[in-house]
Amino acid sequence: MTSTPTAGTRPDDVRRHNRTALLRRLHVAGPCTRAALAAELGLNRSTIKALVDGLAAAGLVAERLPVQRSGAGRPSLLVLPQPHAAVVLAVDIRVEQVAMGLVGIGGEILGRCSWSLRRGASHPTEVITRVADSFRPLAEELATDVVGVGVSVPGVVRQSDGLVHEAPNLHWTGVRLGERLSAVLDLPVKVGNDAELGALAEHVRGAARDAADMVYVSADVGVGGGVISSGSALRGAGGYVGEIGHMAIRPDGRPCYCGSRGCWETEVGEAALCRALAIPEDSPRGAVVAELRELAADPEVAMRRLGEFAEWLALGLVNVVNLLGPELVVLGDLFAVLPAAVVDWVGHAVRERSLVSRAVGGTRVVTSPLGRDAKLIGAAELAFEPVLSAI
Amino acid sequence: MTSTPTAGTRPDDVRRHNRTALLRRLHVAGPCTRAALAAELGLNRSTIKALVDGLAAAGLVAERLPVQRSGAGRPSLLVLPQPHAAVVLAVDIRVEQVAMGLVGIGGEILGRCSWSLRRGASHPTEVITRVADSFRPLAEELATDVVGVGVSVPGVVRQSDGLVHEAPNLHWTGVRLGERLSAVLDLPVKVGNDAELGALAEHVRGAARDAADMVYVSADVGVGGGVISSGSALRGAGGYVGEIGHMAIRPDGRPCYCGSRGCWETEVGEAALCRALAIPEDSPRGAVVAELRELAADPEVAMRRLGEFAEWLALGLVNVVNLLGPELVVLGDLFAVLPAAVVDWVGHAVRERSLVSRAVGGTRVVTSPLGRDAKLIGAAELAFEPVLSAI
Repeated sequence: MTSTPTAGTRPDDVRRHNRTALLRRLHVAGPCTRAALAAELGLNRSTIKALVDGLAAAGLVAERLPVQRSGAGRPSLLVLPQPHAAVVLAVDIRVEQVAMGLVGIGGEILGRCSWSLRRGASHPTEVITRVADSFRPLAEELATDVVGVGVSVPGVVRQSDGLVHEAPNLHWTGVRLGERLSAVLDLPVKVGNDAELGALAEHVRGAARDAADMVYVSADVGVGGGVISSGSALRGAGGYVGEIGHMAIRPDGRPCYCGSRGCWETEVGEAALCRALAIPEDSPRGAVVAELRELAADPEVAMRRLGEFAEWLALGLVNVVNLLGPELVVLGDLFAVLPAAVVDWVGHAVRERSLVSRAVGGTRVVTSPLGRDAKLIGAAELAFEPVLSAI
Repeated sequence: MTSTPTAGTRPDDVRRHNRTALLRRLHVAGPCTRAALAAELGLNRSTIKALVDGLAAAGLVAERLPVQRSGAGRPSLLVLPQPHAAVVLAVDIRVEQVAMGLVGIGGEILGRCSWSLRRGASHPTEVITRVADSFRPLAEELATDVVGVGVSVPGVVRQSDGLVHEAPNLHWTGVRLGERLSAVLDLPVKVGNDAELGALAEHVRGAARDAADMVYVSADVGVGGGVISSGSALRGAGGYVGEIGHMAIRPDGRPCYCGSRGCWETEVGEAALCRALAIPEDSPRGAVVAELRELAADPEVAMRRLGEFAEWLALGLVNVVNLLGPELVVLGDLFAVLPAAVVDWVGHAVRERSLVSRAVGGTRVVTSPLGRDAKLIGAAELAFEPVLSAI
């Protein structure tokens, strides 16, 4: 759990390193007894006591007796993170909506707000201004200092400085979002690709907690994907994350705004889902979700209406699995509302057709338990990364 | 260049760590002056002298005065790796051929042999026996002890124990190749996927020396790919490497032996290349290569005959680039013999159509300078990894 400190390390550095490891454990996995912390972090109980006492004095954790006593002897105290002690702002910019949340240590969403965007007509400046305006009342209500900001954007993002290179569904190009938000909020800001943050959220708090090799694929308006490989986020050159939705899977398919044709997104994105459901392509999100929920009741009807859609979903996933060999695929956002019969059929098709799935013992395909909050939660985790190390 | 040793490290460990770093530098980048070694490894000159003296005494390196003296003052001695001082056996198992080489420290191929296989009719036991039989005379000729073995296989391989899970073009499944070869050769054996080893070779000694994010794609009979991400090999769950050739890119395409349909391999593998060249699908390799070399002379004719083939090659590469965001794609084996006009056209198409290529500043597409030796060189590097740390 805790990595070995490097040579030349002073006692202060060791203490800080162990403190971060302990705080991260509580942040990610929740309340834990001192005894379990000692065992998990490989530290002795007196070291744990000193660390916990220090964090308690700083108000970051509290301790109480566990409700259930196990066995005889003195019970080990339960250590709980104190959500209000370190709060970050998470912002999830979508094509049709912006959602914001204040998230406390431990992952609890302490306050939230959201507003709609006109599809493809939201200027970056408008969004930045509205985020800043909405932030103040949220933070005042909570009466806590916010220590960092994480932002999720559906596009090609350079994480080092928060440059949004291209967010096609938003019609944004070359937006210095990280710098600009940091200037108006006067806080450190980290920006990430939405699907990468969805993957991070599932890995830390969702369906992929025990999966070191996983892919998160989600449909909002477009389709995006994030990859965790050997426990870490997979990024390309310059820190950019891939665009899974622009895998060309139907050479004679529809032209895509990205300049290519037959992209996966054109077959399994929101518009394609609407076509499959035989409702107008610009149906409001609520109508799409309602239609999907209704279909869930009758697996046969669901497969009859969504059979071809499921075929395209499976085809793209076979490619992803053959390229990356994950043990788990988590379907997010609109995909998470697909009828269970469709998800099961897709999972079966992937295991049947993918050579690599067979090698890794059968890739599982599941829906996201975090649903629509995944990217917001991921944005909070992105903001927490530097915060936890600095405490 | 050299990583910091961990806490609790003893002086012996530090010396061993620095020794490995120095030896690896000489192995990978070749002869180097003591002064340059000191600068690159961040060590002082007296430490370098002690390390080099130790390695020289063990016969692993030699020193000589550089041919050209630069500037005034005493010239820094040039340190050269001694190829015969540490030799590994590299084995490249292909669908139609097995190639073997003894490779010395520094990467020089000191001796080699190869033989043909009947396509899809080579039993693992036959190959293992022939490798063992061919190894002895090779090693005797060289009069050197061989310290390890690396094997390249065109299939889904578990690197931890060298299990070949599925090598469809060889018709092998569940072959304990690592264990079995280790037993007959009485040497440690590492087995890797052929495309992953091609990528490793290009990264260490080929076109991708300076590319931390690259993809190697090669056509032998089938099509395989290996990925270096942030400087390390990308693997999936259980250490398995992806199968890029089984990305489905033509849903209405030919059935593939893997159980899927329209796999990339069915459009850009050797058989597809033969169809594009209008020669029989089972043409001998020499005929395919000769035909390609002839086309190289006339770019217009080349594009006319290979235009559709180039289109499918570009389509698959756009997908790979959109998923992984590499700065460089290296085309290996048969792809390395494609006419320059075709390669240029494909590179242009990738940069034009891939959203992610645009973000990373334009992914370059080049042919492998290592050509047919890439996988053999990669297998040698795989064998050298543990050897260099143990010296």
